[in-house]
Amino acid sequence: MKVAIAQINPIIADIEGNKKKILDYIKKAEGNGADLIIFPELATIGYPPMDLLENTKLVRDNLNSLKDIAQYCKDINSTVVVGYIDFDYDNPPMLYNSAAVISRGEIIFRQNKTLLPGYDVFDEYRYFSPATEWGVFELKGIKIGITICEDIWAALSKDNSRFLDLRGYRLDPVKILKDKGADLIINISASPYIKGKRQIRMEMLRNISRELNLSIIYVNQVGGNDSLVFDGNSFCVNQKGELYRHAKGFGEDLLVFDHNIGNELNSEVDDIDDIINALILGLRDYMGKSGFKKAVLGLSGGIDSALTAVIACKAIGPENVFGITMPSVYSSSGSVNDSYALAKNLAMRIETIAIADLFEQFKRDLKAIFGDLPEDVTEENIQARIRGVLLMSVSNKTGAMLLSTGNKSEVATGYCTLYGDMCGGLAVISDVPKTLVYKIAERINKDAGFDLIPRAIIEKAPSAELRPGQKDQDSLPPYEILDGIIELYIEQKLSLEEIVAAGYERETVAYTLRLINMNEYKRFQAAPGIKVTSKAFGIGRRIPLVKRYNP
Amino acid sequence: MKVAIAQINPIIADIEGNKKKILDYIKKAEGNGADLIIFPELATIGYPPMDLLENTKLVRDNLNSLKDIAQYCKDINSTVVVGYIDFDYDNPPMLYNSAAVISRGEIIFRQNKTLLPGYDVFDEYRYFSPATEWGVFELKGIKIGITICEDIWAALSKDNSRFLDLRGYRLDPVKILKDKGADLIINISASPYIKGKRQIRMEMLRNISRELNLSIIYVNQVGGNDSLVFDGNSFCVNQKGELYRHAKGFGEDLLVFDHNIGNELNSEVDDIDDIINALILGLRDYMGKSGFKKAVLGLSGGIDSALTAVIACKAIGPENVFGITMPSVYSSSGSVNDSYALAKNLAMRIETIAIADLFEQFKRDLKAIFGDLPEDVTEENIQARIRGVLLMSVSNKTGAMLLSTGNKSEVATGYCTLYGDMCGGLAVISDVPKTLVYKIAERINKDAGFDLIPRAIIEKAPSAELRPGQKDQDSLPPYEILDGIIELYIEQKLSLEEIVAAGYERETVAYTLRLINMNEYKRFQAAPGIKVTSKAFGIGRRIPLVKRYNP
Repeated sequence: MKVAIAQINPIIADIEGNKKKILDYIKKAEGNGADLIIFPELATIGYPPMDLLENTKLVRDNLNSLKDIAQYCKDINSTVVVGYIDFDYDNPPMLYNSAAVISRGEIIFRQNKTLLPGYDVFDEYRYFSPATEWGVFELKGIKIGITICEDIWAALSKDNSRFLDLRGYRLDPVKILKDKGADLIINISASPYIKGKRQIRMEMLRNISRELNLSIIYVNQVGGNDSLVFDGNSFCVNQKGELYRHAKGFGEDLLVFDHNIGNELNSEVDDIDDIINALILGLRDYMGKSGFKKAVLGLSGGIDSALTAVIACKAIGPENVFGITMPSVYSSSGSVNDSYALAKNLAMRIETIAIADLFEQFKRDLKAIFGDLPEDVTEENIQARIRGVLLMSVSNKTGAMLLSTGNKSEVATGYCTLYGDMCGGLAVISDVPKTLVYKIAERINKDAGFDLIPRAIIEKAPSAELRPGQKDQDSLPPYEILDGIIELYIEQKLSLEEIVAAGYERETVAYTLRLINMNEYKRFQAAPGIKVTSKAFGIGRRIPLVKRYNP
Repeated sequence: MKVAIAQINPIIADIEGNKKKILDYIKKAEGNGADLIIFPELATIGYPPMDLLENTKLVRDNLNSLKDIAQYCKDINSTVVVGYIDFDYDNPPMLYNSAAVISRGEIIFRQNKTLLPGYDVFDEYRYFSPATEWGVFELKGIKIGITICEDIWAALSKDNSRFLDLRGYRLDPVKILKDKGADLIINISASPYIKGKRQIRMEMLRNISRELNLSIIYVNQVGGNDSLVFDGNSFCVNQKGELYRHAKGFGEDLLVFDHNIGNELNSEVDDIDDIINALILGLRDYMGKSGFKKAVLGLSGGIDSALTAVIACKAIGPENVFGITMPSVYSSSGSVNDSYALAKNLAMRIETIAIADLFEQFKRDLKAIFGDLPEDVTEENIQARIRGVLLMSVSNKTGAMLLSTGNKSEVATGYCTLYGDMCGGLAVISDVPKTLVYKIAERINKDAGFDLIPRAIIEKAPSAELRPGQKDQDSLPPYEILDGIIELYIEQKLSLEEIVAAGYERETVAYTLRLINMNEYKRFQAAPGIKVTSKAFGIGRRIPLVKRYNP
């Protein structure tokens, strides 16, 4: 049997565009002799469509799209598996996250998703009802069962807190399909990238194959949709758990191959490389899918804006990236010079606007209200906000999207100015902790073969340069310690006591958790950021703003 | 039987503070001879705790709080019903939204919530498992069943799209409890205020009582929690469907009374009055619960900022409200004078900062980049953002929370400037359509007995005053039409064709829906707003930013 993995990058709700792409891939795969062509989860509509699903027209359009695809398949030999939304608006009206199997113009088989994730960025219970029936279909003598994303994660899992129906009973779709005689399990997914998950995914499916004597074809969506980046990286394992085919990471791909035939491939993963690619794809698609060609960003002379500039240049080309350095009276001359050196290395445009005159004018105009009150954080924020207004002005005038450059450590502790450096359409590295920013910067320089990011930018002590001699580490714990605490609190959800027990100083932990909790209001108004860790700030973390919480 | 309704205003996650409040109410109610004291849904922790529930410490603290409450009840005669989170961290680990019945120090009965809402602002499937067992308990010879919020809405409902378990079967907890012999149904709720819901709620419970021959005691949470305002308005109906007791709207209350005894009360509702009270309570609690005493806002001379100022003065006292008028070169003299007249009527402080000098300085500094490009919306936004920076500066320097003043019609169409007039900790009227803003203003003046909001502010044509002669209606459809389309699209989720079929001009509908869809990114970064309609922008409406959607 000849199989085609059609790893496509859909646009959310673009029913016509996605259909055209699906038909193009079918055409190509059929031309290559594919017996079975497999598309990702919700391929007709893109994942995640979120509350757009409440509009019945969109759901009906998706079903019409499926009909058109079936119609196209009337005269071809290939069988097609495509993710879509099934629905029944009769009594009762339920939506299903579903897979259709199309052959000779007919939908010959359907399988609904069983396990509906409702954690982190997922809200599938909000929209879908779970499968209550399971089956297999046969092609070229092979019995095939279909699972959808989360469904396959239950197999062999020792985690007792997931994969339950609402009454607490374990559900394992793979086991059900195996019992029904499946030889091959297809998994169609829209599985967002997070650091380390790709390795876990491959190991898991290799184990399932081996232990249950099943071959598995895993077809993942690719592309950036808002804060989520789907990494593609579709692959196949045979019944011995050997990885024998692997599609591209972070790009569309069509892979046509003989089922279960091929030598074992290397399955090693380079996390830093993956994160860089995730950021590039996330930025490229966020801009491209919303029609933006050009980006603008502030270059402070620090490592965060430097890394953001590198990612932007790689994503949309340096000719489309415009950096502005906006020195204050407290800025070192290095801040400007280092930014120019960076821009030269990247071959991107850079201009300078000094903010001293505007700062003085704001202080004059506020004098009537402020009187002789001493300067404080207010004046620091004014400078950050002047920069925000200047950058947004360039964005408005030139049609370039403003990129925000804050990292996760800053966003976590509120070491950033709302409506100042937080301005932007996309916060490119807001889920990248500072310590990881350094690692990525070193890798970028290593890959470039020279200090693409000037050494001075990497080595200077981090500073907002909003008052004389200011350094980040005057206000924050050392970044190695800070990032460790943030990971234990945000990603692992430990309590203060548990973090102290893990070896951190109580006072530092208490201070950090206080900063994190009191700055929820800033993050509520933050730009979307590209998720690369298991828990990013944003839509997957919903914390009350007003609370009295003792962590 | 003597019953006490303990309509409390908890603070989210404030386990100690909420416990103290619960014990205070038990003390008072017992002093008044109550046999049965009833608290709202999740009284120990406040509703909605959202993802804080992922921290196991908080859930454990809530259970310890329940133990302390039980311990306190050891030596009193009253039986206490209290909403809390029940959990079992053994295998499998499930959380339940639950009610405990406490008598003589023991938890003598528990009832879990059956129907877990997962629409709009609700995400209960994300956290909780549903009840699978139901029972009644007996007190003073009366058989009592407990329902929790959504549970009671299934009774008699003809809506086939709600009240289903995940397999699509109808569940009706009231019917189950009636079949188990219940004479009295208690409903503990955390039911957020929206326009018109109070009347529906009362009519529904009166019908259930009458048709099923049950008496009902409905106990609702009160208070503002972020964008949600819980209106209280707890009440009781006897088996004949007569409303015979009614607790305060929009305030804490303890109501002690003889079960099923009392004359029928008037059940009329004044929607405008309710909305005003919801906005006042929402603002007061958002500020008070997060420790803010003072507010600052920009006064433009328009009706939106005027209404926001009135609400603020009523919520926290005029001595704590500071208005700033920031005329541009395009502002009419009326804008400033009218704002001063309003401030005088309200007895609140007002100051003026003209923005012309800053505007000129920004234009000078941007000249090097902008060259001779003509002025456009960029320069309008610069002025709005100068105001944002000035207001945030006053907020930072004085510790006053900045209030954003945009209405729902503006926020829907993006007729507002991100990081400009959208700046603020709370968007007080962002769920109030412009046509409703006028109605509320007229009511406020009628209640005041004079033009508290000066007539000139109500009668002038709405304008952002960011370019010469600018009027809202140059860019937007007339507000009566615009608000009609917004309601059909956002609240009723109709398609373009359906809205046209409802009698609106196609071109206007298409233009309005395009504006709504293209401005999702602005709303993503908006301050939380107080929800008063069935569908507010914010946490209850989750729309992808990047999409290609044909409504």
